[in-house]
Amino acid sequence: MNNKILLSHGSGGRLSHELVENKFLPALHNPLLERLDDATVLDFQGRLAFTTDSYVVTPIFFPGGDIGKLSVCGTVNDLAMTGAKPLYLSLSFIIEEGLAEEELQRIVGSIRKTADEAGVMIVTGDTKVVSHGSADLLFVNTSGIGIVPEETHISGSNAQVGDKIILSGTIGDHGIAVMSQREGLRFSSPIKSDCAPLNGLVKKMLMASPNIHCLRDPTRGGLATTLKEIAIQSNVGLRIAEETIPLLPEVQAACDMLGLDPLHVANEGKLVAMVAAEQAERVLKAMRGHKYGKNAAIIGEVVAERPGRVTMKTRFGSTRIVDMLVGDILPRIC
Amino acid sequence: MNNKILLSHGSGGRLSHELVENKFLPALHNPLLERLDDATVLDFQGRLAFTTDSYVVTPIFFPGGDIGKLSVCGTVNDLAMTGAKPLYLSLSFIIEEGLAEEELQRIVGSIRKTADEAGVMIVTGDTKVVSHGSADLLFVNTSGIGIVPEETHISGSNAQVGDKIILSGTIGDHGIAVMSQREGLRFSSPIKSDCAPLNGLVKKMLMASPNIHCLRDPTRGGLATTLKEIAIQSNVGLRIAEETIPLLPEVQAACDMLGLDPLHVANEGKLVAMVAAEQAERVLKAMRGHKYGKNAAIIGEVVAERPGRVTMKTRFGSTRIVDMLVGDILPRIC
Repeated sequence: MNNKILLSHGSGGRLSHELVENKFLPALHNPLLERLDDATVLDFQGRLAFTTDSYVVTPIFFPGGDIGKLSVCGTVNDLAMTGAKPLYLSLSFIIEEGLAEEELQRIVGSIRKTADEAGVMIVTGDTKVVSHGSADLLFVNTSGIGIVPEETHISGSNAQVGDKIILSGTIGDHGIAVMSQREGLRFSSPIKSDCAPLNGLVKKMLMASPNIHCLRDPTRGGLATTLKEIAIQSNVGLRIAEETIPLLPEVQAACDMLGLDPLHVANEGKLVAMVAAEQAERVLKAMRGHKYGKNAAIIGEVVAERPGRVTMKTRFGSTRIVDMLVGDILPRIC
Repeated sequence: MNNKILLSHGSGGRLSHELVENKFLPALHNPLLERLDDATVLDFQGRLAFTTDSYVVTPIFFPGGDIGKLSVCGTVNDLAMTGAKPLYLSLSFIIEEGLAEEELQRIVGSIRKTADEAGVMIVTGDTKVVSHGSADLLFVNTSGIGIVPEETHISGSNAQVGDKIILSGTIGDHGIAVMSQREGLRFSSPIKSDCAPLNGLVKKMLMASPNIHCLRDPTRGGLATTLKEIAIQSNVGLRIAEETIPLLPEVQAACDMLGLDPLHVANEGKLVAMVAAEQAERVLKAMRGHKYGKNAAIIGEVVAERPGRVTMKTRFGSTRIVDMLVGDILPRIC
């Protein structure tokens, strides 16, 4: 049970084959993956969404998830943010020699479980092993393919003046959960990562209204960076109100203690949507009926003034500019 | 000019945006990539090939290529080995803090140049930065999408008894080139990696004959491992003759000196094909007319005896079993 991953597991030779056949295939098995060709052939017709992300989070296990769950959620969510139905994922490991096989096995199990929840299949993969000290335990890349319905035209450049800005729930949970685990911080109420596949929530939203103009998940850089990106891409102003932004008291407390702005802390199971004003309540209601949107709230609106700017009315009634993250307050958060 | 990559370049914040806008987009620009959404939306109809590979080669620059060229060729070739026309690539960097920006820029340039040669577009990407010591300069993941013609059914499990085995050129060049660079070995004739996109060669082969049953590029684990995989997947025996296998004298000399079997040394611009006997000469001729197939040769045939086994008639007239690589003679070759 204390077997370690060796360089030979990445050689392409016998041990690589044994790793794939004895560890990966039983956990991930499906008819497409089992063909074991250099690439997997699939039938596809329509508008295809394609995305990639590498995951370098440390530690690889954290409250509410692990690097495996994260690597499925992150890529599924990037697809869902175009309105796509995620279908297929690739999975590529870069493993540091010495990683416990049992830990790798747990992560593969977590990948399968999350893929099942999201309704996606792992159809192709790759494994590399580097010597001890040349990586940090495990890096994972997932790329993903989804299908975008004909009538859907969701984009970061499609926010419209008058749209309401809806946030799906509390911010900062993922960043603070990983940070706490990494630094050995303990809070009276333990903070869990919000890491979750959001494609089911997006499906409900799109059923409630076709007039969703923009969807994005505020991961690295947090809500502030995501809003700023949208303001620039759509060439509009965004106005939000601090008191409307859902935030767990324990996350607020941790941010106060650590000197972090929760607007800059990463989320992995949240989305922000720009929705035509007259449909906003309808979409909000649909979101609140879904387990990953229970705490959804309208946090602001899209305006014509000051294109490219995000401003926030603070709890104290003043207004401040919200900007992108500068520097890196929490490296390796995803 | 001596700027280094910092952790903040991977934060998702301002420096990440500057890196993408000032360094990556100018080199890689195309209308699909420039949308900068979480996923890229493409029109697609037909049979889709999907593959992924992470590249951890060290050193990142070597005679005949670099990690950028390799990461495009490797993924293009995995697609081409299904008979697909490669179309779109994703590109994901894991960068060790401290990498020279100039080196990253050269690699991005090399990616663009190779993508142009292969006729593929980089349509989506991701950048992560980890602290010094948590990775080794640069790891690259490329995933790829291609379209497979309706009539094409090429697979590692499709080798047929009677097929001829064609190899597209000399073996071991990539492995020995990287090894020499890494270990500071010098040979009288410098050995260059064969790193090349093979989709053009495959296209010529498919035009010469539709009866190509199996294609594979013998990368990690070398020709021996690839043949063994095909023998198992197709449940056939393979018989090859050592004297027919193209091998540069300097690669042979290096292998002798280092105690390596060239059959186990990695290639990055070679393919092996199983072709119906009556079409083999025709396919061979087509290959020899292409710059990446000039030294192509028929090296053996597919037989019914001993399914799952690969045997080789040696230069000395004896017969030996050819098996997968065991252990890892050349780690981080790709």
